[in-house]
This record gives sequence, structure tokens and C-alpha cells, in this order.
Amino acid sequence: MDLFMKCAIEEAELSRSEGGIPIGSVLVRGGRILGKGHNRRVQQDDPVLHAEIDCIRNAGRIGSYREMALYSTLMPCYLCAGAVVQFGIGKVVAGESESFAGAREFLEMHGVEVIDLDLTVCKDMLQSFIEERPEIWCEDIGEEWPPV
Amino acid sequence: MDLFMKCAIEEAELSRSEGGIPIGSVLVRGGRILGKGHNRRVQQDDPVLHAEIDCIRNAGRIGSYREMALYSTLMPCYLCAGAVVQFGIGKVVAGESESFAGAREFLEMHGVEVIDLDLTVCKDMLQSFIEERPEIWCEDIGEEWPPV
Repeated sequence: MDLFMKCAIEEAELSRSEGGIPIGSVLVRGGRILGKGHNRRVQQDDPVLHAEIDCIRNAGRIGSYREMALYSTLMPCYLCAGAVVQFGIGKVVAGESESFAGAREFLEMHGVEVIDLDLTVCKDMLQSFIEERPEIWCEDIGEEWPPV
Repeated sequence: MDLFMKCAIEEAELSRSEGGIPIGSVLVRGGRILGKGHNRRVQQDDPVLHAEIDCIRNAGRIGSYREMALYSTLMPCYLCAGAVVQFGIGKVVAGESESFAGAREFLEMHGVEVIDLDLTVCKDMLQSFIEERPEIWCEDIGEEWPPV
């Protein structure tokens, strides 16, 4: 498997082991990882710490994002896709988009290259969490629980 | 002046007094402020802490955002507009959009009500910072400095 996606999956597993939502992300330039992160909504009671935001945050103030790729175990939502577009990250590699479609079209409209690896391991990991804790998952993506 | 925008301006002034980018934000529901924040890129070396993200973060895990309005001294960029759309915040009130056009069209496409107050006080505050520290401003919105 892609080495960077493997690292994003490890981040997602780390989140799960902390009692959090299993989504992980890494930021890459020229074959080197500049930042890693995972969803920390539960761990830090922080609504904005989606995996990709945590990852970009952990990478720090690194200047231009043009030559970077953001790997995530899940297709980025509008919050994270908004960060990609605003900061000018050139490429997104997602582990899957079946559990949540995300904002692929928005990314592509803004010239971001998007690859969906469609990995069973990513789907299984997130879908088992969603079945177990649907209320936390809905909170994370801004949906009502129970559905209205 | 609108009381909530006055509070957002106070947040922006607080950021400026800390040496940061003067953009402030408040999150409001039913006439009550649930969170306040300001840009902290400089103060915390944190690239994701735009004023609106800081504000949403400070409000904590507050459940549904449907009936909320996000006030910001500047029209939200794609990162912050992405948060608004993903979390389902219904309304955005911006102090101005002349210093930076932001993502108004994207917000409106997703059903968010957007009001631009076009306030001189907000423009003057941000534009004097941009003149003084163009490199930090460009970093904040993901642009190259000097321009390429």
C-alpha cells in the first residue's frame, strides 16, 4: 500500500485507540512527511480538529503549500477542502469516499488533483465507528442526530 | 453599530495589540454570544487559527449550528466558509470584503445568508496591517510573498 496512506491509517488507528473518530491525515512534499494528524473532536472537545486540520496545524507555518499533497483516510469535508483550496495545496489523496462523499467536486473545481484509493481498510475502520457512535459521527459532519 | 460586529471588532483589536492579524469573529444564537475569537497565526504560530476557526473552536461542542450567525470583521475565506457550510451555520455577517473578497459566492451557493456591512473601521484596521506586514497577510491567505 502507498506508504503515506499507510501512515494516515496509523494516525486513524491512534485516534481510535484514544477513543476518537478514526480518521487520519498526513501532509507530504517531495516524498517527505511535513505533518501528521488525526481527528481530535472527542479527545480535545474541539469541533474544528478534523484530521486534515490537525495535520496542517501540526505541520506549522511552512510557507507555500503549492507542491504538497494531503493524504487522508476519508475524502475531505468542506471545512478541510476549504483549507486545501485556500492554502493552495495541489493534491488530495483519499482512502475512501463511501462512508462520506466529502467535497471532491469543490476541490476539483478549484484545480486540486483528487485521487480516491477506495480502500476497504479505511471503510471498515470508519464504518464500524459510525455504527457504534452515530451521534459523534453526525456531530463531526454537522448533521442532526437522530436524523430530523 | 451592530453590537455583535462591535464585539468582533474588539476581538480584531485585541489581536492587533498582541502583534497579530486584526481579524475578529463572534458566533451568535438568539441574541447571545456563544464564542469569540481572533486570528492567532502570529501569536500561536498556528496556520489554521483564522478568526472564525478560533471562534468556532472557543464555542466548543455546542450541538446544532442551524440557528447561528457568524460575525467576522472580514468576509470569510474558503477555510472558514468551508466550516460554515459543513457545520450548517445559517448566516454570515461580514464587516467588509474590500481588503479580501472571500468566499461569498460559495457560501450563498450553499444556502448561507450573507450580509456585508462594508464598514470603514474594518477596512482601515486590516489595510493598515497589510501595508505594514504584507508577508504575514499573504501567508494567512495562502499567497506567495513577494508575488510571483
